[in-house]
Amino acid sequence: MKEVYLLGAGPGDVELLTLKAVKLLKRADVVLYDALVNPEILHFCKKDVLLENVGKRKDKHLKKQAEINVLLIKYAQEFKCVVRLKGGTPFVFGRGYEEVRALREAGFTPVIYSGVSATTAVPESFMIPLVDRKYNDAYRTITGHNMEVFSKIVRHYTPRENLVIMMGIHNLSDISHYLLSVGFPATMPIAILSKGTTQEAQNIRATLKEISLKKVIFFEEMRRLTPAIIFVGESIEMNLL
Amino acid sequence: MKEVYLLGAGPGDVELLTLKAVKLLKRADVVLYDALVNPEILHFCKKDVLLENVGKRKDKHLKKQAEINVLLIKYAQEFKCVVRLKGGTPFVFGRGYEEVRALREAGFTPVIYSGVSATTAVPESFMIPLVDRKYNDAYRTITGHNMEVFSKIVRHYTPRENLVIMMGIHNLSDISHYLLSVGFPATMPIAILSKGTTQEAQNIRATLKEISLKKVIFFEEMRRLTPAIIFVGESIEMNLL
Repeated sequence: MKEVYLLGAGPGDVELLTLKAVKLLKRADVVLYDALVNPEILHFCKKDVLLENVGKRKDKHLKKQAEINVLLIKYAQEFKCVVRLKGGTPFVFGRGYEEVRALREAGFTPVIYSGVSATTAVPESFMIPLVDRKYNDAYRTITGHNMEVFSKIVRHYTPRENLVIMMGIHNLSDISHYLLSVGFPATMPIAILSKGTTQEAQNIRATLKEISLKKVIFFEEMRRLTPAIIFVGESIEMNLL
Repeated sequence: MKEVYLLGAGPGDVELLTLKAVKLLKRADVVLYDALVNPEILHFCKKDVLLENVGKRKDKHLKKQAEINVLLIKYAQEFKCVVRLKGGTPFVFGRGYEEVRALREAGFTPVIYSGVSATTAVPESFMIPLVDRKYNDAYRTITGHNMEVFSKIVRHYTPRENLVIMMGIHNLSDISHYLLSVGFPATMPIAILSKGTTQEAQNIRATLKEISLKKVIFFEEMRRLTPAIIFVGESIEMNLL
């Protein structure tokens, strides 16, 4: 029986790997991993494992999803136990389901091993609650990569709901202005959570208004903090800077 | 140095526990755990650990949050390494931050160890993607416990956004009618995801309209499936029943 797994590598800290993940990595014949996966995690693999970094090409461009799908199917045909190791958890952004579709079309039955998602663990690592009854009852997890997409979903301010914005750091200026324009309070706390759960973790906290007034140089600096999550919500404690 | 940890026990499957969690449980002097924590996880604790189930009283009522806070502080004063073991991950519902506040007021500095959240892992375990570029760019995680709270946040249908509704199974009928009333399409897929990642996992998939037309007996049966997540979104594949 051929086995193909989509496996969550967690948000960065090796110790946030699951027991299931370690067990599977020890068995895997091939591991295709992303740029965001902590390379220390690969030390759990057996000695003769075939490792392939599908996160980046030599010319530093991202491998296209279609190419990754082809590679995944090729390995699944050749080897017994193939692991697609993904940052965070397979189905929270990261195109995991597109890989599932491609594998199914090629006759395979992929299995998902969930990981700790950065969307929840990164705010937690900075002591920011996703939900705190005092301030909110819900949170929205959304891509900030494209302002058109973002603005179609966040159409107005919703009290008692936090925003967890992924892949939005290069749009931080636009996001702060947009949120103010649709009624988010000027005093609403916003936090930039960079490289959460790793040694280089850092965070910046301010109000939406304060961020919106920053100069170009600030936003250039912020872009260097990638990967970063933008968290917007009253449950950010501002006195804990 | 006194140590107090809020530790995520994951969604149910013992193997979804993190390496960090196992290491900490082996050291803990006291573990206060919830009703939703898989009891097998407690086998990682040392032999002379003091275990306290704060999920339920003998008379089957829930221990009040204030009582748990008092107990947590009492143990933190008496023992060196105290663990508050919570289902899922500490800051996604479950009142983790209220415990942090109480501990800080008593002079302690609690540390968070994230777990795999049921909000992401349970849909994944049923092969339902939280995000699938084909259908959505965001998802909203919300409590379904109280319809007034729910309706203040979900005010209209937002295309390309999934809903992950926690603790809403007893309101399933009201939720389905409400979502239709604010413009969700009649054909929108909805899934009830019961006891995900455990041996008793089961799921029911239908359209919003179909669920809204069910009889009282159906909703009574659904309530028996608790804990259950209600997932609403086009990324649910209906042909995989």
